Amino acid sequence: MGQLQPADFEHTLEAALQEMGAGPQLPVVICGMAGSAQGWVEAPYVDLPASTAALAAQAVRVKTAQRPVYIIPGICQSPEIAADVIRGEETLLLGLSLLETIDGLVCLPGTHSKWARVRGQVIEAFHTAMTGEVYALLSSSSTLSHFMNHPITDLSENAAFRSAVAEALAAPEKILQALFSVRAIPLLATDAAERDMPARLSGLLIGLEIASQNPPRSSQVTLVANGHLADAYQSAFDVAGIDYHTFDAEALACAGLFEMARQIMPDVFSKPESEQI
Amino acid sequence: MGQLQPADFEHTLEAALQEMGAGPQLPVVICGMAGSAQGWVEAPYVDLPASTAALAAQAVRVKTAQRPVYIIPGICQSPEIAADVIRGEETLLLGLSLLETIDGLVCLPGTHSKWARVRGQVIEAFHTAMTGEVYALLSSSSTLSHFMNHPITDLSENAAFRSAVAEALAAPEKILQALFSVRAIPLLATDAAERDMPARLSGLLIGLEIASQNPPRSSQVTLVANGHLADAYQSAFDVAGIDYHTFDAEALACAGLFEMARQIMPDVFSKPESEQI
Repeated sequence: MGQLQPADFEHTLEAALQEMGAGPQLPVVICGMAGSAQGWVEAPYVDLPASTAALAAQAVRVKTAQRPVYIIPGICQSPEIAADVIRGEETLLLGLSLLETIDGLVCLPGTHSKWARVRGQVIEAFHTAMTGEVYALLSSSSTLSHFMNHPITDLSENAAFRSAVAEALAAPEKILQALFSVRAIPLLATDAAERDMPARLSGLLIGLEIASQNPPRSSQVTLVANGHLADAYQSAFDVAGIDYHTFDAEALACAGLFEMARQIMPDVFSKPESEQI
Repeated sequence: MGQLQPADFEHTLEAALQEMGAGPQLPVVICGMAGSAQGWVEAPYVDLPASTAALAAQAVRVKTAQRPVYIIPGICQSPEIAADVIRGEETLLLGLSLLETIDGLVCLPGTHSKWARVRGQVIEAFHTAMTGEVYALLSSSSTLSHFMNHPITDLSENAAFRSAVAEALAAPEKILQALFSVRAIPLLATDAAERDMPARLSGLLIGLEIASQNPPRSSQVTLVANGHLADAYQSAFDVAGIDYHTFDAEALACAGLFEMARQIMPDVFSKPESEQI
């Protein structure tokens, strides 16, 4: 989205579809930042509580040369509760609700981690934590950068990561001090300590993110993540004593988008399968 | 310090002294980053508790062509308590202790805010909060930057600043979410709201810094700051119900450096005043 002007989207989409061998009439349903004010066509936010039906009803049809293209709106939470916005994750959350009976907290970690309260097929509330972005900024552009040169390997059993998570859970209000320790520890300790600093910074910020939820021990969180991010959050949930089920984001996006397509274009799906595009 | 190689310091100092009309034999006492490992000559950290006498005793004499030059060491706090380091502020703190009887918390806000516990003329403990640096990074280089274009004017009576301080004091663990609101509020509210975002971001981070101290209401903090920074912290202390006295940093640096000079070079100061350099 950041690299395209509105006029570029259709061509870019068609090129990608051609590469996939998609037929010229295949309808397209899109979620995420293509619907933002700086995207292809703005799809205004839907209010909470939000269901698949509400999002499908307010999907925006894009004027295109050939195929039908729809953009799913994001969701907003009003400033009276706590101003917040989602674009894209709503589709994953509703995809998840089709695959699993959810009644509780769902965590989608990332640059802007999303935590949502989902009941059945309705998103009731959510908020965004800037965890990944703050980590990236501090790693690359702060006075801590000098101590962040060692790659993080495996966080699932990393002692520096786990003790940092515990530290942030116990005293989240001290985060601005704890961050400085990523500089002070290597200045005062052995060279070996410096190797732990990327895992320490990650643990402090993920621990802080979890502390903000204040989830009781033994509560259940649904985690939508894969790879290193899944390892990190699973390890942090272990430290916090939180139970979790993990789902892969891609499968949920497919499920959510397909259900949106069904609801936006019921006529396409009501035809016998042999006549469907 | 960041712009000089070790070999450049003497020339740069001499040029500045010449501009000031200082005599060629005038001794010089320096505090701050000139004594760091990347500075002119490293002055290793002194352990806590730290007094003027201990710092003066471990000042490092620099080999120079003409005048005596000493660098005051910084202070470190061991990793067993909470790894932390200070360079420069120790001299302000000991300057303060000469001008005022201190028994409590001293706050020196800035890029890296320092909070110290000072009793008489001894620094007992301290820590560093990365408040100013985190503010600068988020303002200039994050997804919040787009909403940070309006200049902050007066924070002493700024409602957006004060409510953000109160919010961070009440729920410091929610900071990663509160930061995102600096983006979400302008997306959802009127244009006027965007104007408040720099003050809001400042209030959230300063409120968080104060929350980490957990100072009881009506406690007394000595604030070392001037200008806009003094206005901001005074206003935040008002919101937190904390009493404060404010001192100007420059006066404290002069008092601290002069006392260090007396203790490092007692012979210079024991001469009759007419013979002093």
